[in-house]
Amino acid sequence: MKRLNVDLGDRSYPILIGEGILSRMPEFLAERGIKTVNKLLIVTDDTVAGYHLAPLQEILTQAGYSAAVHTVPAGEQSKTLEQFEEVITSALKAGLDRHSVIIALGGGVVGDLAGFAAASFMRGIRFVQVPTTILAHDSSVGGKVAVNHRFAKNIIGAFHQPELVLFDTALLKTLPQREIRAGLAEVIKEGLIWDADFVAWCEEHADALLALSPEETAYALYNGCHVKAQVVSQDEREQSLRAILNLGHTIGHALEAVAQYQQLLHGEAISIGMVGSAKLAVRLGYDPEIYTTTKRILQKFGLPVRIPHDYSTEQILQAMMHDKKFRDGKMVFVVPVAIGKTEIRDDIEASWIKEIIDELKQEA
Amino acid sequence: MKRLNVDLGDRSYPILIGEGILSRMPEFLAERGIKTVNKLLIVTDDTVAGYHLAPLQEILTQAGYSAAVHTVPAGEQSKTLEQFEEVITSALKAGLDRHSVIIALGGGVVGDLAGFAAASFMRGIRFVQVPTTILAHDSSVGGKVAVNHRFAKNIIGAFHQPELVLFDTALLKTLPQREIRAGLAEVIKEGLIWDADFVAWCEEHADALLALSPEETAYALYNGCHVKAQVVSQDEREQSLRAILNLGHTIGHALEAVAQYQQLLHGEAISIGMVGSAKLAVRLGYDPEIYTTTKRILQKFGLPVRIPHDYSTEQILQAMMHDKKFRDGKMVFVVPVAIGKTEIRDDIEASWIKEIIDELKQEA
Repeated sequence: MKRLNVDLGDRSYPILIGEGILSRMPEFLAERGIKTVNKLLIVTDDTVAGYHLAPLQEILTQAGYSAAVHTVPAGEQSKTLEQFEEVITSALKAGLDRHSVIIALGGGVVGDLAGFAAASFMRGIRFVQVPTTILAHDSSVGGKVAVNHRFAKNIIGAFHQPELVLFDTALLKTLPQREIRAGLAEVIKEGLIWDADFVAWCEEHADALLALSPEETAYALYNGCHVKAQVVSQDEREQSLRAILNLGHTIGHALEAVAQYQQLLHGEAISIGMVGSAKLAVRLGYDPEIYTTTKRILQKFGLPVRIPHDYSTEQILQAMMHDKKFRDGKMVFVVPVAIGKTEIRDDIEASWIKEIIDELKQEA
Repeated sequence: MKRLNVDLGDRSYPILIGEGILSRMPEFLAERGIKTVNKLLIVTDDTVAGYHLAPLQEILTQAGYSAAVHTVPAGEQSKTLEQFEEVITSALKAGLDRHSVIIALGGGVVGDLAGFAAASFMRGIRFVQVPTTILAHDSSVGGKVAVNHRFAKNIIGAFHQPELVLFDTALLKTLPQREIRAGLAEVIKEGLIWDADFVAWCEEHADALLALSPEETAYALYNGCHVKAQVVSQDEREQSLRAILNLGHTIGHALEAVAQYQQLLHGEAISIGMVGSAKLAVRLGYDPEIYTTTKRILQKFGLPVRIPHDYSTEQILQAMMHDKKFRDGKMVFVVPVAIGKTEIRDDIEASWIKEIIDELKQEA
């Protein structure tokens, strides 16, 4: 088992990664001061519940914990204020108090929804994440939790750090191939912003990663979390540095919004967004290899690099105007200035982005 | 003008209290680093808007600030997730970004709603409070913001400190007498938990306070804020000490819930709750004078001390079970152990509370 400590002063917490470690949950809860008298509420989705809920309940019950369950429909459409309210209702019905704990069993949607519920219920109770997707490695580090508004993604939320993240790689084996690819897009992103060697390693081990080979998967998750933890430790509340984690996200979020969070997985959208950012880098005068390498590795993982023809450029630009990476009307973009190195630019002309979006529709 | 600094490290902020100081708003905003390029959203209710919105807008516009407005219906029924979502919608439509500021112009409901919106919009933007009620002196100190759930009051919220509280006593003159009384209930509470001399002063100056005599009103607000600020500074996240601020609130919140937040004003509900807490103190063996003094002063201010006969004891107890001052099934109560001194007891039997509620229905 690998253990990574996210260093945030009195909000520090461990991420545990390993095959089959779900069975050790009670031991890890106890280590974090969560006792059997503390009520638990497991929040999960109906897909994940079918695979992993009963085993988790069994493990907790055996150890003397009492856990209620709230299940939401799988998918981004559950990241709403309405679903959030229902989680709160379940928390009240289960008699949770301020010493209780919410456990997020699922991917990024469940983590965000359950995390925002934990951040807001009684103005903040503890929560524990049990990610069941590769993509969730990203949302499980950093404490950013949120739900969507119909106008904009992740616009209603909080910074709320988990007590513990328990990443059992055995749970990933139920993922469809498309979600594995999409999840790896965020892992590759961690490399692209921070660690050129890791990018090269990912490219070399693409087949093993796509096959979920345990050793490579654990290494990739550990490394992805490690990059993110380093960035977050230096900038918990996203004042500056942390924004580099949004590489590819400005375009990516807009694409998700235009697709109404249905046609594109998050990882697929940011894959296209990262190609767009790389094109922007080249336009700004940086090495053209940033673009060729970014695109080559994403394609090697079977990820999309082109905006579907039927997406309206105007709608994509409109969606960006509601995103939160703007300041006083200027466009702020995370730009890869080399493989493994990024900068935040706040002088990006809207017309350039419009051209890049049009180009991304022609991408081969 | 009186200035009180709420000392919370890098989240410290000033409370400014005085007659006619609304006109100096631009000066105070600038002092807090809020510039004319930062977009503002004023959140208010339809009653307050009729009196005070146009003057505030005029003051801001004259100084070069740009402020959008979101108006909610007056009253506790606006403290919902639905209204919260509408505030967020207005923030998005007005193009607010993470450098923008939400201004709460109104009483506790508007402060709580706007404050939770500010806490959650883009995971937290700045907010400024312009209280227009006496009661709001209480909610303007401490950063507790929240909306209600249909099962429980203030159950969905955050700790989010304002940048600035601007308390213009001239704005209070539009308040109905009943709201003045109810607001003073929280002022008296600050005395009851912390400052016996202030309790005596309030009793002595009851007529001047009920007539909103400027000097006495400013002194009472300053003192009320001062007590609360001292308590909050020592315990920002309500781990222990801060709970004493909830004197009278466990019963009070339950009464409000049973009355569906309509028949009783918050101050009226906690007035009855404080009499209940005093009765509990006597039952626990403390000086009977706690009860007689508490009741006498509240009656002098024309505040209710009796639970209406038609309120169901069972429903009141049920409502308490959803409140948040419980731990592991035990009832936690704030008990006045003397006038000006309180303790938190976690060993209170539910049967005692039932009896006290029945007695409160018989109160003369």
